[in-house]
Parts: sequence; structure tokens; C-alpha cells
Amino acid sequence: MTYCLGMLLDDGLVMIADTRTNAGLDNLSTYQKLHCLAEEPGRQIYAASSGNLSASQNVLGLIEDGLPPAEEGEPRRTLRDAASMFAVAQLLGEALRIANKGVGKALSRATAGSCLLVGGRIGAGAPRLFLLYPEGNFIECKRDVPYLQIGETKYGRPILDRTIKRDTPLPTAVKVGLLSFDSAMRSNVAVARPLDLMVMPAESRRPVMARRIEKDDEYFNALSARWSAMLFQATLSIEDPDFMHEPEESWPRISAV
Amino acid sequence: MTYCLGMLLDDGLVMIADTRTNAGLDNLSTYQKLHCLAEEPGRQIYAASSGNLSASQNVLGLIEDGLPPAEEGEPRRTLRDAASMFAVAQLLGEALRIANKGVGKALSRATAGSCLLVGGRIGAGAPRLFLLYPEGNFIECKRDVPYLQIGETKYGRPILDRTIKRDTPLPTAVKVGLLSFDSAMRSNVAVARPLDLMVMPAESRRPVMARRIEKDDEYFNALSARWSAMLFQATLSIEDPDFMHEPEESWPRISAV
Repeated sequence: MTYCLGMLLDDGLVMIADTRTNAGLDNLSTYQKLHCLAEEPGRQIYAASSGNLSASQNVLGLIEDGLPPAEEGEPRRTLRDAASMFAVAQLLGEALRIANKGVGKALSRATAGSCLLVGGRIGAGAPRLFLLYPEGNFIECKRDVPYLQIGETKYGRPILDRTIKRDTPLPTAVKVGLLSFDSAMRSNVAVARPLDLMVMPAESRRPVMARRIEKDDEYFNALSARWSAMLFQATLSIEDPDFMHEPEESWPRISAV
Repeated sequence: MTYCLGMLLDDGLVMIADTRTNAGLDNLSTYQKLHCLAEEPGRQIYAASSGNLSASQNVLGLIEDGLPPAEEGEPRRTLRDAASMFAVAQLLGEALRIANKGVGKALSRATAGSCLLVGGRIGAGAPRLFLLYPEGNFIECKRDVPYLQIGETKYGRPILDRTIKRDTPLPTAVKVGLLSFDSAMRSNVAVARPLDLMVMPAESRRPVMARRIEKDDEYFNALSARWSAMLFQATLSIEDPDFMHEPEESWPRISAV
């Protein structure tokens, strides 16, 4: 399992991925899942992958070597040629389809399907974010729901649903993103630190931050402990249901089926 | 989809189930999923079902009519004969296996499997709680993790993981249980009010409460709004990561793949 999150905000793009890979519960490893595919002026592309590790690595290999040319005699197609983030998503989608088809034939469909989150910018425009499905089709993150998730998405979603808006500042988004990972890691051992984090401010003149949150990261430990304590306090501070304090004689009954 | 939750605490047993049933997204209905199977002195049995509605109703029908006798000439086996909650779980497990086998043959395995939460007491003992899998095998709720879930379990689990302990008082448990449903309903339209709630205090002399939380329930609406506001405030009150406020010149970079 894996959990990867992308948040596309007015202030920029945030991507976070865990690093746990497992082939069975007795074979847990750490593999980087957030990858920098291009980092040069005017071309910054990052991708996070979930699903079968061999399929994900296959995608990266295919993209590095270049996909077969559209017509004979032309050069192989790489991310360097992509004129827009849409073209990047198309190229990666094609690579994903090839990788999943190859691996999918040999493995059962359920475990083979690799997904990708792809974010970045071409030129000086605002960053864009895409979610690529195992079949290579994709959707783009838009204003209404400013985040996309792949992998073990459910445990960490309620906090995002309630907190992340398009105008959330980047530091708050990083904090809430880490809280989302805290929930996922608490409930599923197949999601674990170290976490890889990438922050791309909306203005292209500003640098991209990339950072690894290690297993013993002090900020994350404090965040996790504080959040637990606050949730606990919050549940206490909400009033109990009135009906739990009514006299027992007046308690309603369910009629028998 | 469905979400059903059982919490077994020192003070008693709490069971909550939603009522949404859907056959495709264009066919949503309300069906009771928390059922009273026995309610008489010394025998109080409740069950909540997830999965295919026809399979769940089949289980209830089989149990009402009685399962085939163990030996020819003996009476059919019903919950009235069960001498313990363990025997209740065995009988319901058998009914579940029969129902799922029948329906499972005709439907695809993925949609057919019905699960059950079964709680209650026989005699004057403390309540017990079981989770029955589609194959009819089951586990019992024990001290370490004082709750069991079936159906759409993930969205509503983080709040339980952090809050519910064996010694949580019943009113708090009901409140946190409703918060867990609030998270599930917010993230998945296939879980919805009305909710059915059952509270069985540990002392057998005290009555069992059963209650329906309707779509316009004022306490639930207030709980949901308050919780959202508190989560939002809680995220704000935690400090942002230090590293987000460091000078951009010193931001670390991810090296290219």
C-alpha cells in the first residue's frame, strides 16, 4: 500500500508521498515514491506513484528512455519535448498504460494497477496537478476540490474535506497534509514514514522546496501528539446527546423485526 | 454501501447503523439495518448487516424460520435455543453462510458478501459483541480494541482509534460514534441518515435504549457543525512547520531521479 496526496492551491502546489512498500506483511521496505522528473528553468515535473512497485519503476524507466516515436525516423518522445503539463500527463499516461499492461498480464489485475499523481509547471504558468489511472486516462485537479489522492486514501480524507480550500496558505496546507498522513499511518501499517514532501510556490521565480520527513522527525511527532490530544479534548468539549441523560424509564425501544 | 459500528465498553454495548441502501447510484433507498432479533428478560440480541440487502434479509428470514435441525426429528434451530452469545454467533454464522452461498452463486462475489455485527446478552452476564464474515466465521470484540466495524469503515475510523477506550462512558461513546458516522457520511454518499442506535448498559437490570437519528435531528446537526468548526480551529492552532518559514534560498531540493 501507499498514500500520496497532491494539493493545488492559489499559493502553489504541495505533494506528499510515503515510502512504504510491501510484498506481503513479512516483506516491508522503504522506496521513494515521490520523484522529480524534470527540474530546470521553465520545466519542473514531479510524480508520485501508488500500486505495484515494479510497474511504477517501469513507468519511470520508460519515460527516461523515451517512448517510441510517433512516426518512424523521429526521435523517441521524452518529457523534454512536452509543451504543456497536459502533454506531460498524456505521455506519462501512455507509459503507465504500457507498464500496467505488461505487468498486469503476469500479475492479477488487483495488485498490478499503478496510479500516478503528476504535478508541476511548463513555462512560467501556475502549477497544474493530474491523477493518472492504471489505464492511462487522467483527470486534472480543479477549483471545486483542490486536492487529489491515490493509494490508501480514505483514512486521511475527512481532515482534508473539512479544511483544505483553494485559498489555504501553503504552510497550513503542508500541516494539514501531514495530519492527513498521520491518520492514514495510524490506521494502516502499510503507510509509513519517511514521507517525501514537495512544495512549488505559484510564482515561478520562487524555488521549489523538497524535504524528507524522517521517522524521528520532531515536528511530525509533536504534530501527531498535539493532534491526538486536541481531538480528544474536542470530543470531550462537545455536549453529550441529551437523550443519553433522560430517565431510563422513558428510553424508546426498537420493535422486534 | 453501509456503515455499522459496535462498541463494547465497561459500561455497556453501543451499536449504530445507517440506513442507506443502493442498487446503483440512481437507486437509493432507506432500509433498516440494525435489527432486534430477541428482546425478552435474559435474552437480548441485536444484529447490524452490511453488504447485499437480499442476502442480509435472507439471513433474518432463515433465523426467523429456524435452521434445519442437527438430527432428523428434532425441532428447527432458532435463537431461542442458543445458550450463549457464542452459540448465537454460531447460528447466525451458519445462516450467513447459507445466504451468501445462495446469493453469491448468482451474483459476483464482490457485491454478494454480507457481513454481520451481532451484539447482546444471554442471561445476566455482560453484553458481548461479534463480527461475522461472509463465510460465516467470526471474531469477538475484546479489550484491546473495544470496537468492531463493517461496511464503509475507513473514513470513520481515525476518530475511534484516538478516542474510544474500554472505559469510555456510554454517553461519550454515543457521541464519538455519531462523529465517526459524520465523517463517513461526509465522504461517501452511500452512507446516510437516518441512523439507528442501540445502547445496552452493562447491568442487565437496566433497560436497552433504541433510537432513530432522523435526517433533521437537531443534536446531530449541531454535533456535525461544531465538530467541523473545532477541527478547523484545531488545525489553525497547531504551529506551522518551521521549515515552511525558512528563507527560500535555504530550501532543500530533491535530486533528480
